Amino acid sequence: MHSNRIIIRDEQFDKDILRLNETLFCNANGYIGVRGTLEEGVPAPFNTMRGMYLGGVYEIIPMKQAESLCNLIEKKQTMLNVADTQTIYMSVEGEEFGLDKGTLLSDKRILNMEEGFTKREITWKNSRGNTVDISIKRMAHYSCPNLFTIEYSVEAVDFDGSITFDSRHIADVKNYSNPDDPRLAAESEAYLTVDRCEIKDGSSLTVSSTQVSKLSIASAVGHRLCIEQDGRIIEEDIPFALEKKEGTSVSAKAAVRLDKGDRVVLTKYTVFADSLRVDDPADTASSLLKELMTKELSGLYAAQKDILTKFWADAGMEIEGDDELELAMSFNMYQLFSSSPRADRMSMAAKGLSGEGYEGHYFWDTEMYALPFFILTDTRQAKKILSFRYETLKEAKENALLLGHRKGALYPWRTITGVECSGYFPSGTAAYHINGAISNAIVSYYLATGDEEYILREGEEILIETARLWLDAGNYDRSGKFVINEVTGPDEYTCMIDNNFYTNACAAHGMRWAVKLMRELAGRVEMAELKERLGVTDAELSEIEEASLKMYLPYDEELGISPQDDSFLQKPVWDLENTPKEEFPLLLHYHPLHLYRYQVCKQADTVLAHFLFPETADKETMEKSFRYYEKITTHDSSLSTCVFSMQASRLGLFDEAEKYFGDSAKLDLYNLHKNTGDGVHTANMGGAYMAIVYGFAGIRINEDGISIDPFVPHNLKGYSFSFIYRGRHIRLCVRDDLMTVQLIDGDGFEFTHRGAKCTLAEKGEKREWTLKQ
Amino acid sequence: MHSNRIIIRDEQFDKDILRLNETLFCNANGYIGVRGTLEEGVPAPFNTMRGMYLGGVYEIIPMKQAESLCNLIEKKQTMLNVADTQTIYMSVEGEEFGLDKGTLLSDKRILNMEEGFTKREITWKNSRGNTVDISIKRMAHYSCPNLFTIEYSVEAVDFDGSITFDSRHIADVKNYSNPDDPRLAAESEAYLTVDRCEIKDGSSLTVSSTQVSKLSIASAVGHRLCIEQDGRIIEEDIPFALEKKEGTSVSAKAAVRLDKGDRVVLTKYTVFADSLRVDDPADTASSLLKELMTKELSGLYAAQKDILTKFWADAGMEIEGDDELELAMSFNMYQLFSSSPRADRMSMAAKGLSGEGYEGHYFWDTEMYALPFFILTDTRQAKKILSFRYETLKEAKENALLLGHRKGALYPWRTITGVECSGYFPSGTAAYHINGAISNAIVSYYLATGDEEYILREGEEILIETARLWLDAGNYDRSGKFVINEVTGPDEYTCMIDNNFYTNACAAHGMRWAVKLMRELAGRVEMAELKERLGVTDAELSEIEEASLKMYLPYDEELGISPQDDSFLQKPVWDLENTPKEEFPLLLHYHPLHLYRYQVCKQADTVLAHFLFPETADKETMEKSFRYYEKITTHDSSLSTCVFSMQASRLGLFDEAEKYFGDSAKLDLYNLHKNTGDGVHTANMGGAYMAIVYGFAGIRINEDGISIDPFVPHNLKGYSFSFIYRGRHIRLCVRDDLMTVQLIDGDGFEFTHRGAKCTLAEKGEKREWTLKQ
Repeated sequence: MHSNRIIIRDEQFDKDILRLNETLFCNANGYIGVRGTLEEGVPAPFNTMRGMYLGGVYEIIPMKQAESLCNLIEKKQTMLNVADTQTIYMSVEGEEFGLDKGTLLSDKRILNMEEGFTKREITWKNSRGNTVDISIKRMAHYSCPNLFTIEYSVEAVDFDGSITFDSRHIADVKNYSNPDDPRLAAESEAYLTVDRCEIKDGSSLTVSSTQVSKLSIASAVGHRLCIEQDGRIIEEDIPFALEKKEGTSVSAKAAVRLDKGDRVVLTKYTVFADSLRVDDPADTASSLLKELMTKELSGLYAAQKDILTKFWADAGMEIEGDDELELAMSFNMYQLFSSSPRADRMSMAAKGLSGEGYEGHYFWDTEMYALPFFILTDTRQAKKILSFRYETLKEAKENALLLGHRKGALYPWRTITGVECSGYFPSGTAAYHINGAISNAIVSYYLATGDEEYILREGEEILIETARLWLDAGNYDRSGKFVINEVTGPDEYTCMIDNNFYTNACAAHGMRWAVKLMRELAGRVEMAELKERLGVTDAELSEIEEASLKMYLPYDEELGISPQDDSFLQKPVWDLENTPKEEFPLLLHYHPLHLYRYQVCKQADTVLAHFLFPETADKETMEKSFRYYEKITTHDSSLSTCVFSMQASRLGLFDEAEKYFGDSAKLDLYNLHKNTGDGVHTANMGGAYMAIVYGFAGIRINEDGISIDPFVPHNLKGYSFSFIYRGRHIRLCVRDDLMTVQLIDGDGFEFTHRGAKCTLAEKGEKREWTLKQ
Repeated sequence: MHSNRIIIRDEQFDKDILRLNETLFCNANGYIGVRGTLEEGVPAPFNTMRGMYLGGVYEIIPMKQAESLCNLIEKKQTMLNVADTQTIYMSVEGEEFGLDKGTLLSDKRILNMEEGFTKREITWKNSRGNTVDISIKRMAHYSCPNLFTIEYSVEAVDFDGSITFDSRHIADVKNYSNPDDPRLAAESEAYLTVDRCEIKDGSSLTVSSTQVSKLSIASAVGHRLCIEQDGRIIEEDIPFALEKKEGTSVSAKAAVRLDKGDRVVLTKYTVFADSLRVDDPADTASSLLKELMTKELSGLYAAQKDILTKFWADAGMEIEGDDELELAMSFNMYQLFSSSPRADRMSMAAKGLSGEGYEGHYFWDTEMYALPFFILTDTRQAKKILSFRYETLKEAKENALLLGHRKGALYPWRTITGVECSGYFPSGTAAYHINGAISNAIVSYYLATGDEEYILREGEEILIETARLWLDAGNYDRSGKFVINEVTGPDEYTCMIDNNFYTNACAAHGMRWAVKLMRELAGRVEMAELKERLGVTDAELSEIEEASLKMYLPYDEELGISPQDDSFLQKPVWDLENTPKEEFPLLLHYHPLHLYRYQVCKQADTVLAHFLFPETADKETMEKSFRYYEKITTHDSSLSTCVFSMQASRLGLFDEAEKYFGDSAKLDLYNLHKNTGDGVHTANMGGAYMAIVYGFAGIRINEDGISIDPFVPHNLKGYSFSFIYRGRHIRLCVRDDLMTVQLIDGDGFEFTHRGAKCTLAEKGEKREWTLKQ
């Protein structure tokens, strides 16, 4: 085990850093997400995004179109800020604590990724000179996703005197808004109506509901208070006075007198429950709170640590030669782990549970960029993510009908419930390739796990319905090629074009696998039943196969590259060299129609297709294409450089692989895009993981099995990580010219290295290979 | 002169017919438009669009985009409903008149297009059995565009008794709304704030202003009241009692006693003025009202008639063999005449001044469909329409910058002020061909009038700036062709495509003429000054010429047709035959992305290009194209069949010319689309005119002069019309196998008929040609 998984930072009372820290020190467990806002609040001018979120919990709000056209989306879902239970005011000898008051002697924030908590450690002196040591430890519990706890302790360092607490449970909250940033909601709205706010048996309960989505969300809050002397409890179960405020919040007040050196410890338990998951959220929250408050906090802390110990054993990654990178990668993996769903009817949002950016929506990023991490480290969470798409297959089929398709499923570009929320369809709904991201994810999961049961139960149905969509969306042109017109590829600087190479490659791949798996698993009774239930005929399978085989993949003879789409190469090349820096990202400075008229890419598109579907082009075409597209790609999206890095690794362009990997892994931890304050970039985190594992380490899993062909970038000494392949726990260590592969757990297996078959025959076996050319 | 220019209809107290009649019996004079709503109002459940409009007077309102993208339009202009001065309540022996009250003995509505008024003629009996003859004559005066009058007279038929009037001047008005129809505004808003409402010297004045556009609109209202016996005035200047209501309206009340057979005549004068045109609208309206009220109404009536007499002499059209068609054509021409601008800073709206459909916006329709009528009948009004584009050239240049162009002018797709109001740019702003409609209009006007002064003063500057836009929007592809990508052609069922044949043809034509006229008129000092002022170099002219010559016009070898765009023919053909009737217009039943993916056209696109720019294809290609596109065109737009008819005439497909002409001329007068209640379709009116004049009559004006090659459709006996060509007033009569051309006024001229030069040497000369094959 490695110990570089603890982040300690000075808070610095600066409004930008404060907002950044709200994201970095958030607590999330796959159901609850709590921004790392200060318990005591911030002065008014600070632009804080104070929020607590529940995965998959949403309201439906109007999204009027400037011009109404048939079947355009005019409603969207938005993630809700639920009851605020993180507010705690504390006073020392009657003086209220705050970073802008008294004297701040030290102020640290800690993220402990080994044990799964965040902590504030503060030494503060009030105006009379009374010094206190404050420690605030917060945890969103993986073992009990409904639970969030705050352990707030204060030691009287140099005085005998009073400490008072006023801990709040506030149901009357609003969503964050920022009218200046199109990526955030412009409207600040109170979406929740407070239905109940009650005090009972020493705890408080609030129940709020949404107007349109008709969801009900309950939060129950309880407190424990004790005084410790030299680490031993000397007084416990100190009572609180609970009082309702304005009918929508509860204040729990307590006062204690401390002798110098004594410590008062307030423990605040919050339990959330919602009507998406339980019938009676109020009852669930109340009874679960009661049950959990009988447990020792230490036991809950231990359970959290156990879960993370297993996680790091399965997934842990070390980087030699760049401690910052190592820490950043741990941070990324920890955030991915904490953001992945631990409740039904939710997936992983673009910002995880760490902020309201993109309104809590799920995009193709989840399957294409974040899922690969889980496929290799946490099969259960991978399947959980995939299941969301099965749960929302019905909505995807309805979406296809809205778009005029007679059959098949078209997944929404952005959603919480499975219903499309894209307001501008040319770079939203028209990005049909999300279907390909999902079918590719199913196949990748299957190849890495061999989980036939998943395919039979969920995967194949999605493969068939997305294949049907492609069949309906495309058509044979006069030369007999299967073409797909009027779609948008990953590059949003070119919209609604014909035969986007990436989309066509995705579609062909998904269609091929839909047919292949139905045929291969034809002997399974579940498959026969599925085929019957879906009304799939052999003729239809042949039709799908035929389209897949005749799929048009544009090729340009003159340049020897794969064109991004039919018309891409006849457009003028954008002069990136002479575009002023302040005009990036271009999308904030140029009308979309202008962008569409140039050869300029927001992000990897054809290069991603080449990486994912190497059968679509020969090596020379891929190399030329890589060189061509790198000149015209702005990487204005955080989904881009990781792909260029991976493909460079694949092509043996090691310098470029390093160059494109660059600092992308550090994006959030070091706030490189200056917007981590809105929430983490989960897709980029997954992308950085892929750039190392699929890129540097050259891991490749396909129908032929797994191959490992690593290299060590110049700026690193080496790296090692664990992963899971078909049930085996494997550890790969690459250092200087040596590759070490160890089978930690599971049956012996075979892999390919430099074209040769290599075997680790039994559990524990470790072998080395030299990487010298 | 022909007398079939009076329309008389029973009102029928039916809500659909009532709304239709509001449009058909509107009064408009090119500045004021007054819907033909009932003076006394209608019962609440009637969906009346009660409105009075002033050309070019607008408010700016928000138009939020569902997703904000760079430089998308988020504000729009909307035409305003201004003060209501048409409301007059009348009571007979204390019983208020209304169509739903008492007994309606007869009720006619009249539109007199020879004299330029509308009239209601009603015989009504109140519940006590007192019968009155009511006559209400309304006029929007061409000779004084600020003036609207109502002459309301009541005769006591069978009783001696009292008649009372309560005539209103209501400043507190709202715009009409209909949330169910995307073509109308969804928001019913009071855009005007009433600043003044005053009574002075027996008349009333209101001044209202807009919040955002900061316009001020004044209306002054005065009354005269007299009693007539046997046609002679027996009592005059009967006083009114004026009273303010709620600070925003004025009620003018008067009561008279009539002896049986006597008639009371109320004359109501309204004068409007607005701050777009005058510095002090209140003062202008008040003093103009005072001045006008000194004039006899009969003099104003005579002036109106004189103007129309000249108009019909210059433009009148007769149809032999279809009286309904003849009446409809007169109606169309009258509406065009009345809708065309008679104030600065306005053009002709899609619905003229007859209703709030399309929010009073001007589209390409004005230049492409309505203007040709004026070019051939009313040079002054033609130039007035053209001038709007010169007045708004600055805004068009700003629009080009918004779209990312470095130079040139891009006219807005829909506008009142010259600033773009299109909310959905793929079928709005992306329709760059509006630039072509405007350049083509300039050239057409020039060819028909020879007006070099106009070219030097306004036309050439627009030609240059639009040519510059094309140069910037397009680029040379690798084969050296000049291509224009990512635009939308006239057919809105295919958007943002490459090399729309129509757009490219437009662009080439506009560019060619920009260069040609600058070179041809190089000797004129004004042209040298213009060239200098615009910084046009000979190199730039050569660049424009080069692009024009190398313009790519797609041609399909296999089908022998001009493809609508680069990708059109690779899409599947929409199965129109098996599309249920209730699914038309398709745009109301299919998601745009779905429509874009098929070969299906909303309206003439390539066929229009072939008609306008015959140099773009040979006859065989045009014929094959015509046959190809007619199979896939739904004519869901009212701009379509007239084009198919014209082109069929041109190609000698006389049956098809008749078929496509069909009932389009009757669209509004007979409410064939069931939506004339929202306002007239000015573009279709102009289109029907073109289908006869350019189509049946085969008039063609190009660089070689004018040619006339008519035929008579099977269902007609013949037709005749007057038109103006290069200052000559000409009358063409086509009947059976005989064509008669008469030079009514002007110098002798030459025209081409069946390839041969024909001459009318002097004024008054009339010659005949046989049309037998």
